[in-house]
Amino acid sequence: MTVIWLTGLSSAGKSTLGCELHDRLRTMGHKVEMLDGDVVRKHLCKDLGFTKKDREENIRRIGFVAELLAKNGIIVIVSAISPYRAMRDEVRSRLPCFIEVYVNAPLAVCEGRDVKGLYQKARAGELQEFTGVSDPYEPPTEPEVECRTDLESVDQSVRKILEHVLVRLAPRP
Amino acid sequence: MTVIWLTGLSSAGKSTLGCELHDRLRTMGHKVEMLDGDVVRKHLCKDLGFTKKDREENIRRIGFVAELLAKNGIIVIVSAISPYRAMRDEVRSRLPCFIEVYVNAPLAVCEGRDVKGLYQKARAGELQEFTGVSDPYEPPTEPEVECRTDLESVDQSVRKILEHVLVRLAPRP
Repeated sequence: MTVIWLTGLSSAGKSTLGCELHDRLRTMGHKVEMLDGDVVRKHLCKDLGFTKKDREENIRRIGFVAELLAKNGIIVIVSAISPYRAMRDEVRSRLPCFIEVYVNAPLAVCEGRDVKGLYQKARAGELQEFTGVSDPYEPPTEPEVECRTDLESVDQSVRKILEHVLVRLAPRP
Repeated sequence: MTVIWLTGLSSAGKSTLGCELHDRLRTMGHKVEMLDGDVVRKHLCKDLGFTKKDREENIRRIGFVAELLAKNGIIVIVSAISPYRAMRDEVRSRLPCFIEVYVNAPLAVCEGRDVKGLYQKARAGELQEFTGVSDPYEPPTEPEVECRTDLESVDQSVRKILEHVLVRLAPRP
C-alpha cells in the first residue's frame, strides 16, 4: 500500500514530478494512478472553494479515494497543494504507507514560473485565498523526501523519490 | 474493466447481494471493491442532499471513483438507489463494461422489510424526497440482469449476476 503525496506551492513542480514518476513506475510494471488536485476538484469537489474548511474536505476526499486504490495494490500519486500540516497528518494516519514529498521551491521562483497565471491573478486581487500570497502554506517538518525543484533537475528529484518508494516496495527478508 | 451497478429501491436487497457477490468474487481470486451509496455519501458527498440535482452529482462522483478502480483491473460493485435512468445511462456510456443489475422487489415488500426504518420516517413525513414514496424511481428498461429478490433466494440472485460477470471476464478466443 503506497501513497506518494506531493505537497507544495502552486507551480512548485508537483504535476511535473508526478507525471514523470507515474510514467517510470508504470514502465517498471507497477499499477499506478495519479490523483491530480485540479482533476479531483472538478469531478469530486465542485462544491468546494478555498476556505480552510473546504480545503480540508478536499484533502479528506482525495485521501478516501487514495486509500481505496492503494488497498487494492495500486501505487497512488497525489499531486495537491494540501497546505495544512494537520490535514496531511490526518491522511497519513489512515494510510500505512504514506510518503510525503515536499516539492519545494521558494515562493519567488514559483511566482516567476506561474504556470497557470494564477499568481498574477492573486496579486491583482482577482483570486482570494491563494496559497503563498493570501493564504498560508505550512511546510512539512519531516517529509520522507524533499525536492528542491529550483536546484535539482526533474530527473534528480524523481530519482530521490523513486529510491524511497522502491525500498518500501521491495519484499522484506 | 467491470462495474456491477446494483440499482433499486431502499431495502430491495442491493447491499445484501453486493456483499455476497464481493465475497464470492474475492474467494475466486479477483480484486473487488464495493462502493456503497451510504458510505460514499459520508466520505465524498457530505454536501449533497436528495434533490434531483444532488442525486445526479452523487452518482457522477460514484461513477468517477468506479472508473478509477475499474481501469486498474478491480471489479467494482456499486450499490446505490440511483433512481434516474438518464444518470445510470451517463455512467454506462463512460464505462466499457457496465453491468446494470436491477434489484427488484415490489415497493410493498421493500417497505415491509424497511431495514433502516426509513420508509416509516418517510410515511410520517420526517424524510422528504424519499425514493418510492415521495420521489420517483425509474426502473431499468434493459438491465443486464434482473433479480426479483421477493421471489428468488440470495444465492439464486447472486448466481445470475455471477454468470453474467464471469462470461465477460473470461478471455476471448
